[in-house]
Amino acid sequence: MRLLILGGDGYLGWPTALRFSARGHEVSVVDNFSRRRWVHERGSDSLTPIGALEDRIAAWEEVSGSQIRSYEGAVEDGDFLDAVVAETRPEAVIHYGEQPSAPYSMISRQSAVETQYTNTIGNLNLLFSIRDHVPDCHLIKLGTMGEYGQPNIDIEEGYIEIEHKGRKDTLPYPKLPGSLYHCSKVHDSTNIHFACRTWGLRATDLNQGVVYGIETDETGRDERLITRFDYDEIFGTVLNRFCVQAVIGHPLTVYGTGGQTRGFLNIRDTLQCVELAAATPADAGEFRVFNQFTEQFSVLELAELVKQAGEHLGYEVQIDHVDNPRVEKEEHYYNAIHTKLLDLGLQPTLLGEELVESIVHAIERYKGNVIAGAIDPQTRWNPAKSPAGQA
Amino acid sequence: MRLLILGGDGYLGWPTALRFSARGHEVSVVDNFSRRRWVHERGSDSLTPIGALEDRIAAWEEVSGSQIRSYEGAVEDGDFLDAVVAETRPEAVIHYGEQPSAPYSMISRQSAVETQYTNTIGNLNLLFSIRDHVPDCHLIKLGTMGEYGQPNIDIEEGYIEIEHKGRKDTLPYPKLPGSLYHCSKVHDSTNIHFACRTWGLRATDLNQGVVYGIETDETGRDERLITRFDYDEIFGTVLNRFCVQAVIGHPLTVYGTGGQTRGFLNIRDTLQCVELAAATPADAGEFRVFNQFTEQFSVLELAELVKQAGEHLGYEVQIDHVDNPRVEKEEHYYNAIHTKLLDLGLQPTLLGEELVESIVHAIERYKGNVIAGAIDPQTRWNPAKSPAGQA
Repeated sequence: MRLLILGGDGYLGWPTALRFSARGHEVSVVDNFSRRRWVHERGSDSLTPIGALEDRIAAWEEVSGSQIRSYEGAVEDGDFLDAVVAETRPEAVIHYGEQPSAPYSMISRQSAVETQYTNTIGNLNLLFSIRDHVPDCHLIKLGTMGEYGQPNIDIEEGYIEIEHKGRKDTLPYPKLPGSLYHCSKVHDSTNIHFACRTWGLRATDLNQGVVYGIETDETGRDERLITRFDYDEIFGTVLNRFCVQAVIGHPLTVYGTGGQTRGFLNIRDTLQCVELAAATPADAGEFRVFNQFTEQFSVLELAELVKQAGEHLGYEVQIDHVDNPRVEKEEHYYNAIHTKLLDLGLQPTLLGEELVESIVHAIERYKGNVIAGAIDPQTRWNPAKSPAGQA
Repeated sequence: MRLLILGGDGYLGWPTALRFSARGHEVSVVDNFSRRRWVHERGSDSLTPIGALEDRIAAWEEVSGSQIRSYEGAVEDGDFLDAVVAETRPEAVIHYGEQPSAPYSMISRQSAVETQYTNTIGNLNLLFSIRDHVPDCHLIKLGTMGEYGQPNIDIEEGYIEIEHKGRKDTLPYPKLPGSLYHCSKVHDSTNIHFACRTWGLRATDLNQGVVYGIETDETGRDERLITRFDYDEIFGTVLNRFCVQAVIGHPLTVYGTGGQTRGFLNIRDTLQCVELAAATPADAGEFRVFNQFTEQFSVLELAELVKQAGEHLGYEVQIDHVDNPRVEKEEHYYNAIHTKLLDLGLQPTLLGEELVESIVHAIERYKGNVIAGAIDPQTRWNPAKSPAGQA
């Protein structure tokens, strides 16, 4: 299959490119390296040492014999993206090429505008290029479970049947996004759904949970193939951050009570899900939505799991409840349906002490790289709100 | 009250500025004249002769003795908008400053991107400026009934109580926007709702129906105060377009069967609604949604009304069913609730033959200005779809 992967230099984009290349597909990647720039600008860096994209691609060819084509440019640049789509004529586009951090979107007006511009306009450009060059192409778009927020009813996969005043319809599931980044993903879903209804495009929106883990089958084949790993307050996802904190002897920073419950999945399962989606495309005109996670945990449960695993490995692990920098419910109902990917054959990699220990071991190799000052939360969702007790 | 009106040079923005100024409020307007530019670029122009903004403001001062302050610039320019908000310190912002045409958004990738950039980023800039300078300010935002689409259940005002698997919540009403313009309004609603939940802003989203009419109490006081009036395929709303077609002897262009049902309101009622919203602000943290229209009609019903009124005035009026350039349902259930503005005291101006005749009379004065070639639909929602019968 001819595949185009947007954001192919990123945490998930790079391992995805390797996976499809390893399976014999013809893979092209697009990236403008803004993730590297954003992380550096915030005074942080990937824990894992990652080479330049061209060097990683060369290493992959050496290891596997397979070639990956790369294009440097921004998805926001519609003419550039259009030329890439016209040239590569993909049968599937996997779109990771967005600003992926909720805290980043909440730093300032500028960072919020950059997030919504990069994400919404980039994705809109893509829809036109698919329509105009490869209308039969399957768009596989990374969304987020955070689009739904924490409603007091079960979260369904994209749609909900509503009975109202004696009539019925199945409509897009209502969204309560939790940051301006999450809002941008809702905007994307709205635009993609429109493009499917109006132009007959086929798309799968993967509403992904919080991803953890480092290694995949392909990135583990050579150290030069390792993917980036962020642990800072802006780009580090919670379990990855906790594992780094355990290794460097920093208390685990639980925001508020830690009762916030979310869906989680292993990076290996992200690849499985994307493969399953690609193998069974959406129908023409269909906007298909999968909730892509394997297990629900509260933040405090994760902290306790990391504490336990860390202590088995000889670390002293403390849990700190820090003032919550976000505006979010800390205790709430949460039950999100996630059966569609299981129905397609997803074999979940379940989180347990052993898995946490393997992540901790991977982190230990690079612990000298940790920039401890980048971990504590600085970005407040509502700058006008004083920390608790100081109102 | 100190009021800031974004898009104060437009069809609705200008009469709104006059109304609040006439009531003794301190009014500032912002515009970058992009509406004038867009219409000219499409080979059309306002039917009514409108002077430069500064000339109209000077005429208003001459007529009323009241001053209106103006700022020339784009809402997409965050630094400019921020400086205006900081200087004017509005108690209410009325935000009309968006690209308002569905067909314009469907012309090309460029026009779609321009629409979503202008609307979504402009509105996002505004949210930050309100948060940072005047957090207690009431944002009155023009949305559209077209955000909802045509679901098979009653359309509620912004929210719907959903009972699902034995649990209940009141959630944002699901949206099925009908163009990339309508998508941009959904994006705005998502962002504003987030800002209310997270920053405690107060906002009223006016999901407006299709507006018709020319004159208001204030614009009727002097010909130099008249507002713009568009009738072309891109910027002309349906009833205004039909009235112009009747006057110039062009068949009324009904798209498809004409069974498309929408909410409509008179331009005089737009002003009433905005006044009512401003007089009773939303609470801090509240994202209040009003469905702003007075009556539902199908497109064919409107055509028949115009035909009848036109024939009474001595015109020969023909109705043509042209191939629908849009992708939309032509026969569908439609029942949209619109009681909240009535509860606040809205006195609807109901549409009837007499009212159509008064619009026709107003058009007759300027019929020499009509550019007939700009009326027929050129912009197709799905360029790949051949006209009916030619597939």
